[in-house]
Amino acid sequence: MDHEEFIKRVKSNIKTPTKPIEEQLVTFVDKCIYVSGQYDQDESFQNLENTLQKIEAGRPNNHRIFYMALPPSVFISVSQHLKKNNYPKNGIVRLIVEKPFGKDLDSSRKLQKALEPDWTEEEIYRIDHYLGKEMVKNLLILRFGNEFFGATWNRHHISNVQITFKEPFGTEGRGGYFDEFGIIRDVMQNHLIQLLTIIAMERPLSFSAEDIRDEKVRVLRAMPQIATENVIIGQYGKSEDGSKPAYLDDDTVPKGSRCPTFCAVAMFIKNERWDGVPFILKAGKALNEQKAEIRIQFKDVTSGIFKDIPRNELVIRVQPDEAVYIKMNSKLPGLSTQTVLTDLDLTYKRRFSDLKIPEAYESLILDAIKGDHSNFVRDDELDASWRIFSPLLHYLDENPEVVPMSYPYGSRGPPVLDDFTSSYGYKFNDQVGYQWPVQSTELPHKL
Amino acid sequence: MDHEEFIKRVKSNIKTPTKPIEEQLVTFVDKCIYVSGQYDQDESFQNLENTLQKIEAGRPNNHRIFYMALPPSVFISVSQHLKKNNYPKNGIVRLIVEKPFGKDLDSSRKLQKALEPDWTEEEIYRIDHYLGKEMVKNLLILRFGNEFFGATWNRHHISNVQITFKEPFGTEGRGGYFDEFGIIRDVMQNHLIQLLTIIAMERPLSFSAEDIRDEKVRVLRAMPQIATENVIIGQYGKSEDGSKPAYLDDDTVPKGSRCPTFCAVAMFIKNERWDGVPFILKAGKALNEQKAEIRIQFKDVTSGIFKDIPRNELVIRVQPDEAVYIKMNSKLPGLSTQTVLTDLDLTYKRRFSDLKIPEAYESLILDAIKGDHSNFVRDDELDASWRIFSPLLHYLDENPEVVPMSYPYGSRGPPVLDDFTSSYGYKFNDQVGYQWPVQSTELPHKL
Repeated sequence: MDHEEFIKRVKSNIKTPTKPIEEQLVTFVDKCIYVSGQYDQDESFQNLENTLQKIEAGRPNNHRIFYMALPPSVFISVSQHLKKNNYPKNGIVRLIVEKPFGKDLDSSRKLQKALEPDWTEEEIYRIDHYLGKEMVKNLLILRFGNEFFGATWNRHHISNVQITFKEPFGTEGRGGYFDEFGIIRDVMQNHLIQLLTIIAMERPLSFSAEDIRDEKVRVLRAMPQIATENVIIGQYGKSEDGSKPAYLDDDTVPKGSRCPTFCAVAMFIKNERWDGVPFILKAGKALNEQKAEIRIQFKDVTSGIFKDIPRNELVIRVQPDEAVYIKMNSKLPGLSTQTVLTDLDLTYKRRFSDLKIPEAYESLILDAIKGDHSNFVRDDELDASWRIFSPLLHYLDENPEVVPMSYPYGSRGPPVLDDFTSSYGYKFNDQVGYQWPVQSTELPHKL
Repeated sequence: MDHEEFIKRVKSNIKTPTKPIEEQLVTFVDKCIYVSGQYDQDESFQNLENTLQKIEAGRPNNHRIFYMALPPSVFISVSQHLKKNNYPKNGIVRLIVEKPFGKDLDSSRKLQKALEPDWTEEEIYRIDHYLGKEMVKNLLILRFGNEFFGATWNRHHISNVQITFKEPFGTEGRGGYFDEFGIIRDVMQNHLIQLLTIIAMERPLSFSAEDIRDEKVRVLRAMPQIATENVIIGQYGKSEDGSKPAYLDDDTVPKGSRCPTFCAVAMFIKNERWDGVPFILKAGKALNEQKAEIRIQFKDVTSGIFKDIPRNELVIRVQPDEAVYIKMNSKLPGLSTQTVLTDLDLTYKRRFSDLKIPEAYESLILDAIKGDHSNFVRDDELDASWRIFSPLLHYLDENPEVVPMSYPYGSRGPPVLDDFTSSYGYKFNDQVGYQWPVQSTELPHKL
């Protein structure tokens, strides 16, 4: 690839919905320079250094951010060569690191050990793009900026929490990379556990990066390792109409792979706020829809007055169509005294007239430039999270008799899923006719 | 008035927006019979009795509902003659009674004493049309059918409660009746105190009428009589542009009347749930808008993280445009980390596609036909409510030096009102640019 080809690729990946943005893109690519080289040769890095020095000529400082979007295998070599050849003499340096951060606790620690002689924790930005999503960044404000959420946010009022990630497509010929990691490493141990810690953490002393990350680590340290009886795993087969391939039909997937493309896990937090409340994490590929959401189900109201009234649920939809809503029981308008499930709703598209939600990476790269670590993963956080998942991962790797349940491409997941979820106390609302968000006042009469 | 004139008047007061309703009205007026007579002559009531017996001929029972929409002066005479001449021998009887139920504790008790020999409490339906309003009927379900409301509904999380009634017009030539009663008797002692008891009551043992009314009485009995220092009264003057008349310009109003057309009162409930939480009742005529709403303001969130973040408010709009919404702090969407005040919203018009909310009287008359006392005022409830208000009413009546503050027709009320409200802890949200319900994400940047 030469410079022109590089610029072409950059351009093709940036959307320019308006004229001003089109012009900004021109200014942007004018600043881009492509330098190619080998991952393990000083000469390549010296070449990069010369280019950098030319750009920086005349500046009082040479602040640099290195963004390592690299295969794990060359990760250590590149970081070492960067340190040796390109560490700025008179400026701030930041190293953005992409997942995977290892495959389990041991490999993660090894990776970390390799970075430590060259880079301080202050310099490292472990990126998890889920932390850049608008609704995830909103979670802290929702939780700690609203008294009426604060009051209910504990085991006395909350029955269970579900954190769900669904993708409507399979590996589609890119199963080679995926098969090495599986859905647990690819989505749960990083993205979903991050959401969990933000939902569950105590009020930080301040919104500084270290205070926030201290609290996240405290949550992780209060969590026991995952017990295998609290897990179901699945792998997608052909779609029911046969039009979509099974995971094992992907040529890049090793024959007979037991790699899970679906997983549901119930996790617990042993502290005063959460003891006994299951946090159910669910992630899967080739499911019926695209969705990432947090669903907090409240306990039943005191019994005696209402019969089988649905539970309140607070839903925070991370994607698509950002929204916060509470499922609330209300009187069915009209002459009856029937109750009806409605929503207190904040759908962003409806509320904000000129909504422009930045891409997660857009937001996180800006944070890195500003030096704000709040939305990046700290070393001890990573360590604590691997500790929780590693025994499960080893169990799955080492026991060939443990085979994932099959589910059809395009379905909701393994058929056992609903039983699994309800076994942890989740109550499905089976009020027939519930529709969101506009519904007829006539509906329940017709039942 | 003869039968035809009566039917004409009935027809003119019933809206027929659709063809089927137009046809229903024809069927309805066919069932209507007009019988005129004197309030105090047995002959008139015997005449009525003959008509009733003709209608009831051949029926196994003669159930009857008497709706007394009468001036207070003839109230006792009519109820006594009804009992003597028209009490059904073989059927259920119900007597619907309209306010005013007296002018103070003594007169209310006298009225009640006059009814007691003839009518049991079971037979009496004291109508307060506010209890028939859709949102008021919804209050019990909202409060007791939703765990996340139940959790915050107390003095630990709620700073203050405001119950507001605003009318955009004055007496407009009908001041004669009003002047005898004033805004406190006309609106506060009945409508607003009813809303207060439903907001404040403990969970009833069941939704039976007696269990609900037991709890309402318990709230009233926990309330001290109103202290005069917790009250402001006002009377409207001319509008600022001079186009609208002052209360005293109404020819039917006695010269120099001190009758309050506006009142704000802070009340307290001495029980575990509410001790120290002011319930601020506000009612006024000739104000800037038409509105009846309940506004529950939560306490500040724990300080330390946010600076001057607005408080949560739960607003239940009774009229116009029924809605429930929570003012909630959220992250301003986009790259900043600013907070912005938004709403979790349930606006009925938006949510229910074929919304038809019955008139309050429609709903209450149906309740009376069904024999459901839940939304009618019980004798001890009435008594307890007069006990709270009577000392204030006597104080105002007996002290000619106490003169209501003047406020312009069409204004928000006496200028001192905001100071009064904030002296009980209400915090005005002064986040500039707050708009409901659609707002620009750009707004706060421009401040």
